[in-house]
Amino acid sequence: MKKSKIPEGFLLSGLHCGIKKKGYDLGLIFCRQPRKAVGLFTTNLNVSYSVSLCRRNIKNPIKAILVNSGNANCFSHKQGDKDTELITANLARALNTDKKNILFASTGIIGKKLPKEKIIKKIPQLVKELNDNPSKFAESILTTDTKAKVVSKTLILGKKKVKITGFAKGAGMIKPNLATMLSFILTDADIDLSLAKKRIKEIADISFNSINIDSAESTNDSLLLFSSRKVPLSGSQENKFFQCLEEVMLELAKMIVADAEGATKFIQLDVRGAKNKKEAKEIAHKIAGYTLFKCALYGSNPNLGRIVAVLGQAKIKVNRENLSVNFGSLKKKEVNVVIKMKRGKANWRVYTCDLSPEYVRINAEYN
Amino acid sequence: MKKSKIPEGFLLSGLHCGIKKKGYDLGLIFCRQPRKAVGLFTTNLNVSYSVSLCRRNIKNPIKAILVNSGNANCFSHKQGDKDTELITANLARALNTDKKNILFASTGIIGKKLPKEKIIKKIPQLVKELNDNPSKFAESILTTDTKAKVVSKTLILGKKKVKITGFAKGAGMIKPNLATMLSFILTDADIDLSLAKKRIKEIADISFNSINIDSAESTNDSLLLFSSRKVPLSGSQENKFFQCLEEVMLELAKMIVADAEGATKFIQLDVRGAKNKKEAKEIAHKIAGYTLFKCALYGSNPNLGRIVAVLGQAKIKVNRENLSVNFGSLKKKEVNVVIKMKRGKANWRVYTCDLSPEYVRINAEYN
Repeated sequence: MKKSKIPEGFLLSGLHCGIKKKGYDLGLIFCRQPRKAVGLFTTNLNVSYSVSLCRRNIKNPIKAILVNSGNANCFSHKQGDKDTELITANLARALNTDKKNILFASTGIIGKKLPKEKIIKKIPQLVKELNDNPSKFAESILTTDTKAKVVSKTLILGKKKVKITGFAKGAGMIKPNLATMLSFILTDADIDLSLAKKRIKEIADISFNSINIDSAESTNDSLLLFSSRKVPLSGSQENKFFQCLEEVMLELAKMIVADAEGATKFIQLDVRGAKNKKEAKEIAHKIAGYTLFKCALYGSNPNLGRIVAVLGQAKIKVNRENLSVNFGSLKKKEVNVVIKMKRGKANWRVYTCDLSPEYVRINAEYN
Repeated sequence: MKKSKIPEGFLLSGLHCGIKKKGYDLGLIFCRQPRKAVGLFTTNLNVSYSVSLCRRNIKNPIKAILVNSGNANCFSHKQGDKDTELITANLARALNTDKKNILFASTGIIGKKLPKEKIIKKIPQLVKELNDNPSKFAESILTTDTKAKVVSKTLILGKKKVKITGFAKGAGMIKPNLATMLSFILTDADIDLSLAKKRIKEIADISFNSINIDSAESTNDSLLLFSSRKVPLSGSQENKFFQCLEEVMLELAKMIVADAEGATKFIQLDVRGAKNKKEAKEIAHKIAGYTLFKCALYGSNPNLGRIVAVLGQAKIKVNRENLSVNFGSLKKKEVNVVIKMKRGKANWRVYTCDLSPEYVRINAEYN
């Protein structure tokens, strides 16, 4: 049997159906055996019809995840939910399953009707082209991203071998809360579902939830962990699996920041010496989301005043004795900014980028 | 007696002392009789030494307000408070008064030591040049502003005549909270102090507190209302005075937005049909502060999705039946965006501007 490039039990495809003017805009993840998946979704109250559908179906065994880019499938028309069900019903029929076993993820412009006929028409081809090469699927989920984001790892556990393949798209409207952007993590490791639910939240917190591009929480953020359960694991093997999952998710999260709209610098921002974890996290996100700090980074400008001002705005009183800021090598492409306070012992790390004139131009024209 | 161009009882001056490389950077407001002033200050917890001094002295009768631009006099060194007192003590001596009767306002870069010698050296000239022309003072308080902001009104009340002259500087780091930026309002109307304290908060709320350039609340925001009390007013005349004061403050606030860093559009943003005033105000400020909305405005792009997303992020659930957005004539320089919801009857109006690549450039280089 040929060795699969992706976790055992999965097949993928991606093609152009015409939502975007060019490039792949429709992708499919197929699991030979329906399996329960784990999903984290945006905390934005106005969500896409796709997220609503996922929330309804996530409790069921999942046979396939359909993804489109170029249209958020959100706030477009009264029949949005109905149209979404119609699309998944068509896919279910082609896969000989029920529509309740399908998940759907969308990304792109909000407020425009998803061209359902274009999608439905391409479903047979999408199903026919399913294979074990991740590249077309990885491309089909992108919007303003400049490159595909795939991380694959193989874990050798005694005589067993498990794979994790993670996909993500990011670029803009990135300030995660619980989950972020679109990310699909596939594996063949048979992990305990309730443990996976717990661990993925923890890992999301230090990866996808610790990136901040523009403080904007999307209507479509979805993170799905999907296992074909081909390879059973022991307890200690499960620990190793989750370590590996953490690496995959962290790498994907960093790839999103590195490919952020208009970004010229990747910033690792460490907040140290906060009163508690919650405070450390809040401070790190406030700074990472502060427009004037991001402008200063773009100018390689170690502007201490921006930190002092945003801390005060966040009701954190500092003085020259209890605050020190190390801007690292600001001229470089990858920068580590370290903010040390003397309030306590808690630390938090987030990943962010500068704000460039190019970001403004991209989003001025985005429609 | 020659007619004064500014309210009776005041004199002004402004000059270059060397904090900035060029242009006026030191200004003085002088009141012949020490009078109690009304002050509103930033809610940022990390404040300048100048704001701290104002908070200590605002309860005293005020003889003079010293203002410098080019340096925020904030978070610069251990002796910051001491140096500030030393400067005002020198001014007090030159004016034959006590240092507790002096207020001080600063604006500019945070974290750099204020060159006190340069200021002290120029105090004699600053005092000597006091006169009734507002233009040099108006210029001395600017930073990245491209123009001076002065509004003067004369109110005829029967046989009496009262004047109001307001000054402001703005440009960046503008997201007021209680008070904003630097603004000095002079008048000769003898208004009741406790009434003035109450009314100025209300008026600030619909003027300076309803502008949002970059959601950044400064360490130095100060609004001072200062009356020479030359002209006594009756109750109904007081009402007319406050109407006129509202016009002055609203005009100044709008001038700040129109001259915002890099702005190409002036946006009047109306939120209608919110549950209550608090909600209307919160929504208006969230939208006005949302980077992606401001980028869309720069691109004259009526991007409904940005509104839907930021409302959901603010936990306001909307659908196509209960939200309508009118983007007005987005191609124009002055735009009225109207957001109608069906949640209740409360409305709020804020003034904001677009986010342009030029804003990023200005703040990338600001040091």
